Amino acid sequence: MNLLGIDIGGTKTAVVLGNARGEIAASRRMPTASDSMEAYRKRLVELCHEVIDKAGVPAARLDAVGISAPGPMDCKKGILIAPPNNPGWRDVPILAMVQKAFAAPVFINNDANACALAEALFGEHRGTRNLVYLTFSTGMGGGIILNGELVQGSTDTGGEVGHMVLEPDGRLCGCGHRGCWEAYVGGRSVAETLKEKIRTGGIHTVMIEKAGGIDAINLQAFEAAAREGDRFALAEWDAFTDRVAQGIGVLIMALNPDVVILGTIGIHAGEFVMAPIRDKLPKYAWKWPLGACKVTTSSLGGKIGELSALAVAVTGLRHTGGEAR
Amino acid sequence: MNLLGIDIGGTKTAVVLGNARGEIAASRRMPTASDSMEAYRKRLVELCHEVIDKAGVPAARLDAVGISAPGPMDCKKGILIAPPNNPGWRDVPILAMVQKAFAAPVFINNDANACALAEALFGEHRGTRNLVYLTFSTGMGGGIILNGELVQGSTDTGGEVGHMVLEPDGRLCGCGHRGCWEAYVGGRSVAETLKEKIRTGGIHTVMIEKAGGIDAINLQAFEAAAREGDRFALAEWDAFTDRVAQGIGVLIMALNPDVVILGTIGIHAGEFVMAPIRDKLPKYAWKWPLGACKVTTSSLGGKIGELSALAVAVTGLRHTGGEAR
Repeated sequence: MNLLGIDIGGTKTAVVLGNARGEIAASRRMPTASDSMEAYRKRLVELCHEVIDKAGVPAARLDAVGISAPGPMDCKKGILIAPPNNPGWRDVPILAMVQKAFAAPVFINNDANACALAEALFGEHRGTRNLVYLTFSTGMGGGIILNGELVQGSTDTGGEVGHMVLEPDGRLCGCGHRGCWEAYVGGRSVAETLKEKIRTGGIHTVMIEKAGGIDAINLQAFEAAAREGDRFALAEWDAFTDRVAQGIGVLIMALNPDVVILGTIGIHAGEFVMAPIRDKLPKYAWKWPLGACKVTTSSLGGKIGELSALAVAVTGLRHTGGEAR
Repeated sequence: MNLLGIDIGGTKTAVVLGNARGEIAASRRMPTASDSMEAYRKRLVELCHEVIDKAGVPAARLDAVGISAPGPMDCKKGILIAPPNNPGWRDVPILAMVQKAFAAPVFINNDANACALAEALFGEHRGTRNLVYLTFSTGMGGGIILNGELVQGSTDTGGEVGHMVLEPDGRLCGCGHRGCWEAYVGGRSVAETLKEKIRTGGIHTVMIEKAGGIDAINLQAFEAAAREGDRFALAEWDAFTDRVAQGIGVLIMALNPDVVILGTIGIHAGEFVMAPIRDKLPKYAWKWPLGACKVTTSSLGGKIGELSALAVAVTGLRHTGGEAR
């Protein structure tokens, strides 16, 4: 089984050739930024062929192509509606663009859903029937698998857990709503809130130094300052992990999953973020479903992007009746 | 296909004989309260045989038995752990009790899940792949169907949406947590909060009269007073419907369902509760998934209990490979 995976990120686009067990034969990367959509398309198709050649697989022997890309998107039509970190990309018919270059079927899903599929297919908890994957980067995304099936939803927004309102009339979110989970735990929102508190409160914190200036404060500087025991950073870390726990608790109560997997910050910060989250969870979820749910970090590390694209190909084939061995 | 349904409620237990299309041939009821568990079991089995006889179906021709009962429960073992409105019932092996009396397979699920199955099989939106059923009675329950499958969860608590914490450190819930959805929208909690506000604020409201005294205030008196334009009741109705909308919004963002169906209060209060909920939803869910989601009331009315038990039988047969025609 020869699968081509295309992982489109805000900065880089990765192309990978692998199989249905998540074994990678070849991969290459290119910047996502481009002079035009047409230039991007051309370079992407070139890169695909380079990877196929490198792996020694004739293009005609390709079984499927999977694309993992930022939402919002229309998965059936394969259109990227308005990826937040790709300015200028509006209603990009990415599926058709790729499909034109290959005879194999092309499938697409948003990055968080694709990562959930990768965890369910290739991760430490592969085969788990009820799995939630969460990613805390600039924004906050989620992918939900229940009864062994991805929760795609009616209009492809299943798993948009970052925009569950967890505090009515709460903090303003980038989406325009108030009190979204992302407004409390998404990287951009957290950084904005910290900067504002530091500025208006005239607060001294090593976070500024760690970041190299107030304007550059991000989740990494936040974590580094908290690890050093900075008082302001620690109090904020406590509030941050409490909000992470609240949202996970909401999902545990509604869905009773076997496992909740944290990508990004879960991988980077490890037990420093996971331990306080686990400590706070009993406030937000009943003992019974909580006891049955493993709250853990991704085992796929830096390979999750490439694997997520392969997972989209595997799942697409399965849904269309094709065998993915 | 001859299916026996047993719907165990806090007050009444209904037994029904019907088919996989939700057509009911015979039904009877008995009080749930009993001198002993053994007396209840005996009377229940008698009632089952009465219903089977009334329908003219030999017990040997029974294809399956479905039980809808209050949670929490262990569905696989068929044990009612501690139904809140059946004092004295602890670890009741209801499935074994019924199984002893019949050769046909017996299946069980909690009432809210069973109602979701009934909506998906027999309701106006039957066949819908992504459906959320919500019930606001004494407490607050939910049943979730995604990709055509019930979200049972890892330990049978899938759909316990009433205990999603929608306000950290918020109102105390009967479950011991703070800020659960149920603490804001469950009948008992709402009534307690109204009584306390009326007492401490010395508030004059027709709600007292409607209920026949402060102590008797309930959702019905609340609704009646709001319908009459009582100022206090209207302001509280606004807050109540806002909280209902928040929780529905959370589910729409996480799961992107095709339909959200409100039983109980949705049926009783109709547009008087549905219109403000729909008005408030845009604060809590994105336009796109919200536009694709019908937020409506149950079409099954008073028959939903009996149908829910049949739905459990139909679904149980399907999962064990039996055909339910």
